[in-house]
Amino acid sequence: MTEAADPQRCAELARDSMYLSDYASQALGIEIVAISPGRATATMTVRKDMLNGFGMCHGGLVTTLADTAFAFACNSYGETTVAAGFDAEFVQAVKLADCLTAEAIEQSRAGRLGLYDVTVRNQRGEVVAFLRGRSYRLRGKPPAGA
Amino acid sequence: MTEAADPQRCAELARDSMYLSDYASQALGIEIVAISPGRATATMTVRKDMLNGFGMCHGGLVTTLADTAFAFACNSYGETTVAAGFDAEFVQAVKLADCLTAEAIEQSRAGRLGLYDVTVRNQRGEVVAFLRGRSYRLRGKPPAGA
Amino acid sequence: MTEAADPQRCAELARDSMYLSDYASQALGIEIVAISPGRATATMTVRKDMLNGFGMCHGGLVTTLADTAFAFACNSYGETTVAAGFDAEFVQAVKLADCLTAEAIEQSRAGRLGLYDVTVRNQRGEVVAFLRGRSYRLRGKPPAGA
Amino acid sequence: MTEAADPQRCAELARDSMYLSDYASQALGIEIVAISPGRATATMTVRKDMLNGFGMCHGGLVTTLADTAFAFACNSYGETTVAAGFDAEFVQAVKLADCLTAEAIEQSRAGRLGLYDVTVRNQRGEVVAFLRGRSYRLRGKPPAGA
Repeated sequence: MTEAADPQRCAELARDSMYLSDYASQALGIEIVAISPGRATATMTVRKDMLNGFGMCHGGLVTTLADTAFAFACNSYGETTVAAGFDAEFVQAVKLADCLTAEAIEQSRAGRLGLYDVTVRNQRGEVVAFLRGRSYRLRGKPPAGA
Repeated sequence: MTEAADPQRCAELARDSMYLSDYASQALGIEIVAISPGRATATMTVRKDMLNGFGMCHGGLVTTLADTAFAFACNSYGETTVAAGFDAEFVQAVKLADCLTAEAIEQSRAGRLGLYDVTVRNQRGEVVAFLRGRSYRLRGKPPAGA
Repeated sequence: MTEAADPQRCAELARDSMYLSDYASQALGIEIVAISPGRATATMTVRKDMLNGFGMCHGGLVTTLADTAFAFACNSYGETTVAAGFDAEFVQAVKLADCLTAEAIEQSRAGRLGLYDVTVRNQRGEVVAFLRGRSYRLRGKPPAGA
Repeated sequence: MTEAADPQRCAELARDSMYLSDYASQALGIEIVAISPGRATATMTVRKDMLNGFGMCHGGLVTTLADTAFAFACNSYGETTVAAGFDAEFVQAVKLADCLTAEAIEQSRAGRLGLYDVTVRNQRGEVVAFLRGRSYRLRGKPPAGA
């Protein structure tokens, strides 16, 4: 099954393969609720063991949710792609029991580099964080072989 | 106890107060192994439930470790300070059972803004990630009151 | 004239006041072609004295155009606001005589902090760069008094 | 002359080749005062035509100086390398006639990606800005052929 053959099917296979062994996302209750070429949406509900010393959701875990959406989006073409880095901005506090949705959208793909914008919203639709992810494609190995 | 009276004691009190309710860092086994005004060092050992779909440590959790070090460093003056955002760069893969150490060092503090550089190394001393954190000081409430 | 009285007029006055002494933007031929509360659009045509050692437009000058759009957008409320920093991403090379348009749009404004996304396109409408700007509002002085 | 043969000579040749046609840096009075493998130092004196609407040096031009140092550092191995992006932080205002020095130091180089930290200081040695540059190596063409 190649990308050209059926991009949507390719994205779904990459998601299934990655999620199966993504123990970190599983442990945090992160689910991939949508996937398509260059796009992914992930959700997470804030638990007590996700709070920081100020009683808010730890920014690192909001970032982990966003990073997961980014990872599934940039691997949706079936070629092993890793995060080279990202820029995260926190614009509103996240509280216990908040239901977060992170939507990753591809902005650019050229050579081995890709750029993805992730917006994280709470259950009221308010933006709580932005993440701009930079991906680097490895030598075409399928995720399963990584 | 004011900052002027004993900055080191102030940093230790802020650390104790924050860590007590930092359930996220506790759940990830993150420990604050050093604290001083404008500096903090945190450690984390990579567990199976921290791996991503490629069998490596999830970049979001490497970031969470770095973000924790950043948070303790920027709150070491006893004034409630939050992360406005950060830039993260991943330069080497992190594997199961790796012992990571994140060292946060203040680079600048002016008005309500602060800038902190965090370097994350593995047990061989190799750098695996850099994080540049941007902090924003709230209106002087002690962390305990946040 | 207060912001509440007429936000659009306020934005235009801020633009006029700032541009008058913005010798850097003037020297680069940058023009502010649109302004409104939280938004600004700036243009620049690439001259020979803007090329880098590879014969392309110097990335710093593409950034300067984007930064100008960002500065006018975040000062459009008539309160002195400075750039605390930004993240820039270059996705396509820019050539001699290219006509660039940078559009800045506010994404968030809370407390003294603001977040602005700038997209830079060439004359064919292709995105050449993204800039995400972080602003910091000073103590309410009008730009003219800065 | 290969990198292995004499890295320092290679860095100097790359600098000479790039600077000759770097009209942007020349127009801004930027000089490359030091070069070695993975490192470069550039200077610039703030002129009136570099001021922004607040009478300070335009942040985009402080960035251009830092970006130039970054570009020379990441091209010091004689392989054409471009800026994929950078994160800039401004920590102190820069004034007319200030003499700025930007020092770029390589932090990481792996595959086609590189990471460079640039610190910009004024004539009093005070840090005015930080830039963290991300480079992408093209297919080994010498700068002269770019």
